[in-house]
Amino acid sequence: MGTNQSWGGRFTQAPDTLVAQFTDSQTYDRILYRQDILASQAHARMLGTQGVLTQDEAKTLIEGLSKVLAEIEAGKFTWRASLEDVHMNIEARLTELVGSVGKKLHTGRSRNDQVGLTFRLFVADEMTVWQDKLRALIETLCTKAKAEQTTLLPGLTHLQPAQPICLAHHLLAYAWMFKRDCERIDDAKKRVRISPLGAAALAGTTYPLNPYEVAKDVGFPAVYPNSLDAVSDRDFVIEALSCASILMMHCSRLCEEFILWAHPSFAFLTLPDAYATGSSIMPQKKNPDVCELVRGKSGRVYGHLLGILTVMKGLPLAYNRDMQEDKEGFFDTTTTVINSLGVLTGLITHLTFRRDRMLAACKQGFLNATELADYLTQKGLPFREAHHVTGRAVALAESKGVCLEDLDLPTLQSLDPRIAEDVYPVLDPKTAVARRETLGGTGPVSVAKQIEDLTQWLNHA
Amino acid sequence: MGTNQSWGGRFTQAPDTLVAQFTDSQTYDRILYRQDILASQAHARMLGTQGVLTQDEAKTLIEGLSKVLAEIEAGKFTWRASLEDVHMNIEARLTELVGSVGKKLHTGRSRNDQVGLTFRLFVADEMTVWQDKLRALIETLCTKAKAEQTTLLPGLTHLQPAQPICLAHHLLAYAWMFKRDCERIDDAKKRVRISPLGAAALAGTTYPLNPYEVAKDVGFPAVYPNSLDAVSDRDFVIEALSCASILMMHCSRLCEEFILWAHPSFAFLTLPDAYATGSSIMPQKKNPDVCELVRGKSGRVYGHLLGILTVMKGLPLAYNRDMQEDKEGFFDTTTTVINSLGVLTGLITHLTFRRDRMLAACKQGFLNATELADYLTQKGLPFREAHHVTGRAVALAESKGVCLEDLDLPTLQSLDPRIAEDVYPVLDPKTAVARRETLGGTGPVSVAKQIEDLTQWLNHA
Amino acid sequence: MGTNQSWGGRFTQAPDTLVAQFTDSQTYDRILYRQDILASQAHARMLGTQGVLTQDEAKTLIEGLSKVLAEIEAGKFTWRASLEDVHMNIEARLTELVGSVGKKLHTGRSRNDQVGLTFRLFVADEMTVWQDKLRALIETLCTKAKAEQTTLLPGLTHLQPAQPICLAHHLLAYAWMFKRDCERIDDAKKRVRISPLGAAALAGTTYPLNPYEVAKDVGFPAVYPNSLDAVSDRDFVIEALSCASILMMHCSRLCEEFILWAHPSFAFLTLPDAYATGSSIMPQKKNPDVCELVRGKSGRVYGHLLGILTVMKGLPLAYNRDMQEDKEGFFDTTTTVINSLGVLTGLITHLTFRRDRMLAACKQGFLNATELADYLTQKGLPFREAHHVTGRAVALAESKGVCLEDLDLPTLQSLDPRIAEDVYPVLDPKTAVARRETLGGTGPVSVAKQIEDLTQWLNHA
Amino acid sequence: MGTNQSWGGRFTQAPDTLVAQFTDSQTYDRILYRQDILASQAHARMLGTQGVLTQDEAKTLIEGLSKVLAEIEAGKFTWRASLEDVHMNIEARLTELVGSVGKKLHTGRSRNDQVGLTFRLFVADEMTVWQDKLRALIETLCTKAKAEQTTLLPGLTHLQPAQPICLAHHLLAYAWMFKRDCERIDDAKKRVRISPLGAAALAGTTYPLNPYEVAKDVGFPAVYPNSLDAVSDRDFVIEALSCASILMMHCSRLCEEFILWAHPSFAFLTLPDAYATGSSIMPQKKNPDVCELVRGKSGRVYGHLLGILTVMKGLPLAYNRDMQEDKEGFFDTTTTVINSLGVLTGLITHLTFRRDRMLAACKQGFLNATELADYLTQKGLPFREAHHVTGRAVALAESKGVCLEDLDLPTLQSLDPRIAEDVYPVLDPKTAVARRETLGGTGPVSVAKQIEDLTQWLNHA
Repeated sequence: MGTNQSWGGRFTQAPDTLVAQFTDSQTYDRILYRQDILASQAHARMLGTQGVLTQDEAKTLIEGLSKVLAEIEAGKFTWRASLEDVHMNIEARLTELVGSVGKKLHTGRSRNDQVGLTFRLFVADEMTVWQDKLRALIETLCTKAKAEQTTLLPGLTHLQPAQPICLAHHLLAYAWMFKRDCERIDDAKKRVRISPLGAAALAGTTYPLNPYEVAKDVGFPAVYPNSLDAVSDRDFVIEALSCASILMMHCSRLCEEFILWAHPSFAFLTLPDAYATGSSIMPQKKNPDVCELVRGKSGRVYGHLLGILTVMKGLPLAYNRDMQEDKEGFFDTTTTVINSLGVLTGLITHLTFRRDRMLAACKQGFLNATELADYLTQKGLPFREAHHVTGRAVALAESKGVCLEDLDLPTLQSLDPRIAEDVYPVLDPKTAVARRETLGGTGPVSVAKQIEDLTQWLNHA
Repeated sequence: MGTNQSWGGRFTQAPDTLVAQFTDSQTYDRILYRQDILASQAHARMLGTQGVLTQDEAKTLIEGLSKVLAEIEAGKFTWRASLEDVHMNIEARLTELVGSVGKKLHTGRSRNDQVGLTFRLFVADEMTVWQDKLRALIETLCTKAKAEQTTLLPGLTHLQPAQPICLAHHLLAYAWMFKRDCERIDDAKKRVRISPLGAAALAGTTYPLNPYEVAKDVGFPAVYPNSLDAVSDRDFVIEALSCASILMMHCSRLCEEFILWAHPSFAFLTLPDAYATGSSIMPQKKNPDVCELVRGKSGRVYGHLLGILTVMKGLPLAYNRDMQEDKEGFFDTTTTVINSLGVLTGLITHLTFRRDRMLAACKQGFLNATELADYLTQKGLPFREAHHVTGRAVALAESKGVCLEDLDLPTLQSLDPRIAEDVYPVLDPKTAVARRETLGGTGPVSVAKQIEDLTQWLNHA
Repeated sequence: MGTNQSWGGRFTQAPDTLVAQFTDSQTYDRILYRQDILASQAHARMLGTQGVLTQDEAKTLIEGLSKVLAEIEAGKFTWRASLEDVHMNIEARLTELVGSVGKKLHTGRSRNDQVGLTFRLFVADEMTVWQDKLRALIETLCTKAKAEQTTLLPGLTHLQPAQPICLAHHLLAYAWMFKRDCERIDDAKKRVRISPLGAAALAGTTYPLNPYEVAKDVGFPAVYPNSLDAVSDRDFVIEALSCASILMMHCSRLCEEFILWAHPSFAFLTLPDAYATGSSIMPQKKNPDVCELVRGKSGRVYGHLLGILTVMKGLPLAYNRDMQEDKEGFFDTTTTVINSLGVLTGLITHLTFRRDRMLAACKQGFLNATELADYLTQKGLPFREAHHVTGRAVALAESKGVCLEDLDLPTLQSLDPRIAEDVYPVLDPKTAVARRETLGGTGPVSVAKQIEDLTQWLNHA
Repeated sequence: MGTNQSWGGRFTQAPDTLVAQFTDSQTYDRILYRQDILASQAHARMLGTQGVLTQDEAKTLIEGLSKVLAEIEAGKFTWRASLEDVHMNIEARLTELVGSVGKKLHTGRSRNDQVGLTFRLFVADEMTVWQDKLRALIETLCTKAKAEQTTLLPGLTHLQPAQPICLAHHLLAYAWMFKRDCERIDDAKKRVRISPLGAAALAGTTYPLNPYEVAKDVGFPAVYPNSLDAVSDRDFVIEALSCASILMMHCSRLCEEFILWAHPSFAFLTLPDAYATGSSIMPQKKNPDVCELVRGKSGRVYGHLLGILTVMKGLPLAYNRDMQEDKEGFFDTTTTVINSLGVLTGLITHLTFRRDRMLAACKQGFLNATELADYLTQKGLPFREAHHVTGRAVALAESKGVCLEDLDLPTLQSLDPRIAEDVYPVLDPKTAVARRETLGGTGPVSVAKQIEDLTQWLNHA
């Protein structure tokens, strides 16, 4: 017998070195140690309650596992590659600590349902951290929005000036996206927080287990109703990565905007030194690297989503080893999500918006053309004609290199005699913003309501 | 003025022919006509209620739109490429029918929020069809499962024989996956069924609209609280495609199994002639093309998901034309999903499982080895040793080319003296299945409970 | 016998209607008619030469196929869904035209190798069109570059002003990318232009075919050395889609820049009216929709690449019906590539660069800071210190709201006494550009050389 | 001044800790140390030759870099996170070792072109390793094929028995795929092995560099003709990942087949113990984990391809920090490719094909039906009728549960009187294989030729 593996009975040859390294997962799955121990303690407790183990045995296992946990957290635990994964490493150490009763821990379960529960616990925990980070980011956006309720800037469509909007409104658009992310994660967690324990290898077990008890103990509200599904379902990680992809897409959009706004042609914001980098060659440089990296990291998260979708395509029931590929992509994703949300929150907290530049930009691009057309419509011109008159006014102003409001009254009246002195206040961007008070509009009351609603949600979410 | 476009005022040149063709969407978005008309009628009704239009004007618009709908459904509508998209085609025809009041329909909205509502209505409708199709498939699986409650077959892990299971249990594993799909779609629909109307181009509108009214009228429970988000959010279609990708992945797994089972080495099923194809060269062929196509079509749906994620990456607020790319991928996806679920349901309804072959296969691969190990454990041997003894028994039987149950008692006892005559019933696959009655296990009571639970869900979902 | 299919012999039931529709491909693969006929004519000619058919039979088939081709091109051909695909439709019509000898066309081949050759011919033809379109775009870029050799604009890194560059150099960067695309496509075509004919269904054929002859006849330089690989290889379409993805990514970058440059804060270009669109609401709008759509369409091409990669993952030898999914993604891709390159070429031809705005922008962002640091280094200061002195100069100028060259000599000398009157010409962006004449640099000689090299390549490619 | 960074001059605040960690790349890019040093030595040598540095300075730098290399390889090098990346770490240590001349190493280059060259060298080196590993795998396949030239097994299409083939032919199909991978990599390397040095930050440099010299020195045949393209091109890594994706797809297909063949219903091979794993629960298990993992790992490589494509979508010129995301995906890919090819080669070397089982399987599924149809055609029956007669023979044999060759002559003659005693040798699978000698066919001469051609290629590639 040349092998240490728990399953070596039928084998006459140890794994090839490269194979051992190729199938080894403890280098990366050790990060699951806390959840593995929590799940094992719940399993042991249930085995005791059900009489599969004695209460004393259960207690020994639970306490032994607590010792292993303490060792790991104190950095005193020796991880052994020969033990393949986090689960075997912990069980082996447990047995060293508590003797042969340690081997009874695995009664009525297999690695298939064990890893399933452990990983689901981890995914659920990380998703909760994502939500915490999202809430912190939303709070920061609300704080900034509160301070920028009277700051105007050009609202863009097609990256072209469209209509003036309020900066608070713009920031809150992202707050609502991130709130939607929180809610999407809540929904996804319903399908993460289901315990597969009791499925054993694939078919259920002959021991009188109580799967509900274990689920309750680890804080999961549900158990799988079918053992084959329980050990071969990886929907939960796909759904988590889908949430992460959408969330990172939102971040990429916000970062794209900050990168644009940091360009001197916009100069809508000043990057805090602590959130920018320079150049070893060009002394004037102050680069928005943080935003660029966050934007770029959407790619890696999309990639992990595709990766696991590909892995699962066409896999027959039940467990297949391909499914081990579910972990590294998720680990990298959760690091990416947490760090990206963290640096973004820090950046937003410390950046300064240049209100003067934003207001000045409201003069560019004839943002008030819609107002003029609306004004003409109210004076009785059909909208289609009002649109044409305004188009001619824009062309005229453009040819003179001025704004609409710089055209004097006679000039405007030469385009349409209905235009009167009362047109000028209408052309002020403040007026345009103030008039858009429908639900969700950029008007001050609508914006204040948004801040209030989000704050209330933050206080209760 | 060389252009027909509604926005042509400022332009001195018509679009280049290739450009017109490149930006044209009516060739594919006309499929949205019903939802566009429904949304426009709700908008008109609200404009009337709010006093923006007179009640008479509103009525004229609503009735005119009904006429347009009737024309389209009767195949009497002429689609014009020069009118760019479904929305302009319908509005133009409306104006032909009801006169210039037709132009008032667009009051207080823009194509940005109009297309947003129309497309969300379409996506929600299609997702409901997906759910109907999923329920039909689940029902078919339950019907088949009911008939196969005593059929045994080898349960596999790593595609290797693991433990005997019941065919009903195997089929139900997929039923539960598809039920999870239904629930995931329910959750996703929460974020589809939000009305963006009132956002206008990007900033809200100056008309006294009532967005809640429109939402209620079209059957949506919510409205967007931020106009910028309203016109630039495409999360809903990403989430729909994510649901579709997971659902198609489930289909791909089921099809993979049917393809395997149709191979003569398995011969676990007989494909109905109407769901198989032959070969023009090889007269003996009966190919599972339907299953292969469904399996392959998972690829195209994954592709559409990644396509739209790519489109949205790094797009600044608010609307950008890139977002027009949200539609074709979804249209192709919904056709794929609906047809795939449909052919799968038909196939399963008509296929025959070969119970004899499945039972015979339970003799292969030492499926009852776990039972022997458990038996030895119950006789007092520590599990680890029981595992080793069983491993030796397997090796011995394999070398003789027989099953474990074919070894006579003296032979078994030479491996461990605890083994007695009562081992033989334990080695019967029926026993192994019957003993796995924990929640979600393959035992008959557990399986009957699953069928009952699913049936109840179908009756109330 | 209720079926028309060529393979129906063993079947007692016709395909279900939904199945027939699900497996039908003639709705989309009829686009391959020209290549199918070309390949069939080559096959018939070879059968004649090899004596498998008589020379008369071969001639009848070849002429009959030419008639079918003429009918299709004249729009007089009736496509029949019951005949499944383009190949069966053509063969059936051929047999109507020439009688039962038509059935001999299929001698020694199967649909597996037939569709393989047909599709490869189509892919190769389309890729050649891509190259033509790429060359037209490169030519347009060169023409524009020639006109903009003395136009300066800020070169950016991290979207921040870095160093002044010449517009021609910037445009040529894309020309070189597109040239690389041409070369990549050339390499990929080596693996597209291989004939699978002779592989028959999977194992080769018993007829004395001459596969080289067919390959030569259709213009392919090679044949597959292994029949299993021949019928199950789809590398060629993956590689084509990979080329398309990279190419569309290049387009997305160029479009991103044009979209930025069209924003009034930049105003580096004027979009031709025929390549822009307006807004039905906002009369001032002139939107770069064409660029946005091209940028967005990168997503759909990426999606098709990942779709076919997913399809092929884990497929056993030899042909599987999943592979039919190779076509629609490619068809959509080639339309997308050809149209995107076409509109881009048209757009670039007609757009106007605003040289004044570009030059003015060179004053922003301290583009000449590197020059000052280099100047100080040449005056003997170590680069690291020169970098610091320049950093302080930038900070000083920024605080005064001026450029480096606006600081008077005493002010500059207060930062470092080495600075003299000769610093001012160094700070001129023209000087900075003129000094970068290393290979590939932005200097005028280097740029002229690039134009010359590309022109020469265009003349010989 | 609170910062160590080389670019800190203009900054008054050090990077935030989380930002420092977020932008830090030395944890993973230190793997590039060898290539970074090689490139720096080439740069220093060229600076000496061009007279930018003295020959003594150049020599000092080159020797100093060799010392740094030795330190790193001896494990004596201290990596400092504060120095951000591999490049700054090495340069800082160099300066410690050789004094302030160390700072001159960076003359005329920036990190943008430096990292570009370093990473291209690394990618090219790894791709060469991929080719070595591919050749080893091809050699192994050839060796196995040589030993299995007379082994017959069922050739499948649609996973259904189609025609008998020779195992050598089947294995060689993969050898040809892997050879195609080698060639594709060769082509891709043309676009990897281009030196960007001389581009400096983005615009070229004012120093009289000789970029050709550096390229030649590091073994690259070409240099970039445009500096903007040079620093912002990431095509090379996309193309490498595309090659890797196709290659891993090939591996996934081979692994799928081995997994099927290891199932007892096939039992076409015996997995070597050292390349299989067992189960801690089920003592009979021998799982093809290695194959499952390789198959699954295709997903992660696809994901990395999508990731970098997403990163590059829509990025303006020139360098953007997003591009730093090019590395980790490639690093993970090259590890995956190298290990996957390695374990596959080892596995194939050690596995045993079960010729008896393969031959027995040739009796299943009426593999010789095509032969009977061909036989009837040669006896004068039109192929379409021959196909029908054979279909009836298959149905008859199937109903009796026998093979075609088990039907006696009178029975066969009752289907068609042309059938005579000479039909039986035709129905032998050996005959069927032997008759398929067209180019690329499964016949023995064709197969021997394939082995010879591949061997010759291996000897010269």
